[in-house]
Amino acid sequence: MNIVDIINKTKRSLPLSDAEINWMVKSFTEGGIPDYQMAAWLMAVCLNGLTESETLALTYAMRDSGDTLELDIPMTVDKHSTGGIGDKTTLIVGPAAAACGLCVAKMSGRGLGFTGGTIDKLESIRGLRTDLSTDKFTEILKTTGFSVISQSETLCPADKKIYALRNATGTVDSIPLICASIMSKKLATNADCLLLDVKWGSGAFMKKRDDAERLAALMERIGKAAGKKCRAVVTDMNTPLGDNVGNALEVKEALEILRGEKKGALYDLCTELTAQLLELAGKGEHDACLKMAAQAISSGKALDVFRRTIALQGGDARVCDDLSLLPAASNSYRLRAVCDMEILSVNSEEIGMTSLLLGAGRLTSDDIPDMSAGIVINCKPGDILSAGDTIMTFYSSVCSDFTETAFRGLNAIRFRSIEEGSSE
Amino acid sequence: MNIVDIINKTKRSLPLSDAEINWMVKSFTEGGIPDYQMAAWLMAVCLNGLTESETLALTYAMRDSGDTLELDIPMTVDKHSTGGIGDKTTLIVGPAAAACGLCVAKMSGRGLGFTGGTIDKLESIRGLRTDLSTDKFTEILKTTGFSVISQSETLCPADKKIYALRNATGTVDSIPLICASIMSKKLATNADCLLLDVKWGSGAFMKKRDDAERLAALMERIGKAAGKKCRAVVTDMNTPLGDNVGNALEVKEALEILRGEKKGALYDLCTELTAQLLELAGKGEHDACLKMAAQAISSGKALDVFRRTIALQGGDARVCDDLSLLPAASNSYRLRAVCDMEILSVNSEEIGMTSLLLGAGRLTSDDIPDMSAGIVINCKPGDILSAGDTIMTFYSSVCSDFTETAFRGLNAIRFRSIEEGSSE
Repeated sequence: MNIVDIINKTKRSLPLSDAEINWMVKSFTEGGIPDYQMAAWLMAVCLNGLTESETLALTYAMRDSGDTLELDIPMTVDKHSTGGIGDKTTLIVGPAAAACGLCVAKMSGRGLGFTGGTIDKLESIRGLRTDLSTDKFTEILKTTGFSVISQSETLCPADKKIYALRNATGTVDSIPLICASIMSKKLATNADCLLLDVKWGSGAFMKKRDDAERLAALMERIGKAAGKKCRAVVTDMNTPLGDNVGNALEVKEALEILRGEKKGALYDLCTELTAQLLELAGKGEHDACLKMAAQAISSGKALDVFRRTIALQGGDARVCDDLSLLPAASNSYRLRAVCDMEILSVNSEEIGMTSLLLGAGRLTSDDIPDMSAGIVINCKPGDILSAGDTIMTFYSSVCSDFTETAFRGLNAIRFRSIEEGSSE
Repeated sequence: MNIVDIINKTKRSLPLSDAEINWMVKSFTEGGIPDYQMAAWLMAVCLNGLTESETLALTYAMRDSGDTLELDIPMTVDKHSTGGIGDKTTLIVGPAAAACGLCVAKMSGRGLGFTGGTIDKLESIRGLRTDLSTDKFTEILKTTGFSVISQSETLCPADKKIYALRNATGTVDSIPLICASIMSKKLATNADCLLLDVKWGSGAFMKKRDDAERLAALMERIGKAAGKKCRAVVTDMNTPLGDNVGNALEVKEALEILRGEKKGALYDLCTELTAQLLELAGKGEHDACLKMAAQAISSGKALDVFRRTIALQGGDARVCDDLSLLPAASNSYRLRAVCDMEILSVNSEEIGMTSLLLGAGRLTSDDIPDMSAGIVINCKPGDILSAGDTIMTFYSSVCSDFTETAFRGLNAIRFRSIEEGSSE
């Protein structure tokens, strides 16, 4: 086989055979195909797409480029989000679903972004480790039904290499490539039931709802074709999810939900996602599952799962009962309303950029996020604030001058001044 | 500026500024942009195209990546062919146009292909050198009006680097990229009048007439935009040009034309191209120019130009009067008709492949062509051959078993057996 022939086929929208895709992924991973040839193929895919059968073959080839996770557990479930601003749903859905009898085995990457990933958020709990052996992971899952470990280095090496190249060559935004990247890792972690939460909107990778729906439908079909119970839902990420953005701040908010202290859009999404997982795993009809999810939280059982999981992963589980044990920022700043105003919108992407300025995120894989950094947003669209009210509060231990942050944070807010008319 | 932004713009069919194109070409040539990013951009260009103003900017940026040729001669003309099988027109048009008073200053690359390039063909004349200094080139041009030198290493380094990458990444067949590659070199060699002969058909790079016409029109507009007198003509390369294919064999045929011994399609094309050059240089109307071209040959003046140029470039000029001084192959084989037949077509590409098997061409830049190798085709479409007549004769000094060559050569011919019906 010849990589130039393969490039030319995709360039001319001619289908590749499974054997060609396998050979290409294997040769590229092993270094037999140079980056520049793979980059040309990736751009051809961006512009011409891949058929569903090509996407499935690519997903399989990437999955098979490394190890797969084999757990000695009859049935496991996994929940994956394509990521967004303030998305701490795994920390709530995982314990809630486990409290309802599921075994939620989650392997998570660190990723790059405005805030850390689920792994970073969890690691803001003192002592908690995510670099666990498969045996330890299995033991925790059998005990509490919920565990999160960091993605093994030997899982999907093809995806790592292809993703780095896509990032450098403007070939990230391709639905079949995104699908194969996510699904290869999900298939390698080998859960029996898979719930995919595809975010769309300003704070998500997919800016348009249509694209998110196409990706969701494709991933669901690929998951089913691979023999998994799989469902993909599309959810809104135009406005940040919940009030808190930043690693420890998001753990805090997740605990507030699990402690039954907080309701609202985040609570509603988490109970809905939990219900979807329960339904997918055959625990009943949707309404019954939704009730089970709510009860898992109101009964304190979900919090108890989380508490035990934290302890088993080496973390300070007292945090569940004393939120002040979470890392606290040394500096903070309140952004206040200078006039009476109606909040029209809160832009996720701008909040994410602000959080990055505060040190909460990671631009390169070498960056270490400030666990204490982030934003608490005190308003949501439709709220009326009076002059002097807090719009949002910034937290950081690495940043002490909040001038740029305030400027950027304010840019996330669209408001109508109640005395003077619209700001827009 | 950022290469990922540039890639993304072309991927989304958004126009690039001249500054962006300049920066990209300069950075790539200097090694500041890695191959994989350039490969992604080249594929985006293949699939989305470039606007005419982007193509012009790319052409200028590539031209300006190295030296340009500055000759102390008031007006020079150049003729460029996109290449085909048996295309020895430069060896006839150059001397004929010079005999009519033009100064034909040609810088030519070796290139890869079925047979050598113009440089290889000329170097089959014993002693002839093409690696001349600019001073020597100028001196010959002032004396005879015709000289061909090999392309300077310092001319268009960006084109060299981009072309090698295109070849390895399936990004060769893009009209704006082909245009920029050719025109950057033509503009760097700086002739005042430029005649472009764009070939189409089985033996040409452009298989479809439409594509050749689009390329021709684009190159003509780019040439004019750069202030040149420029004309592009589209000519047929489905059937080999003339009877001889191979380096020394093509010099032989060119000499037969210049000696007035041979007429036919090759002669007609050469007088036409000469007339076009004369017209472009303001020597008169088309009919008058065509007459001048024919007289340049019939009078022996064109042959005299060639004879003097060969001598000034160090070659054995006696070859003009004694064709047996050209390199002769040690082996040959006649492919004969096994039945009475009408020749329906002679496929250029297959003849080219056969010539490559005989050793006449170059697959990689390290290959050294066998100057004596090639094919003399004894038939053209419409000819009737009797059983036993020669269809074509193979010549080679490196190949002695002609089994594969005969098989391949026969595949170039489509005939109708006169007794038994069509072979197809």
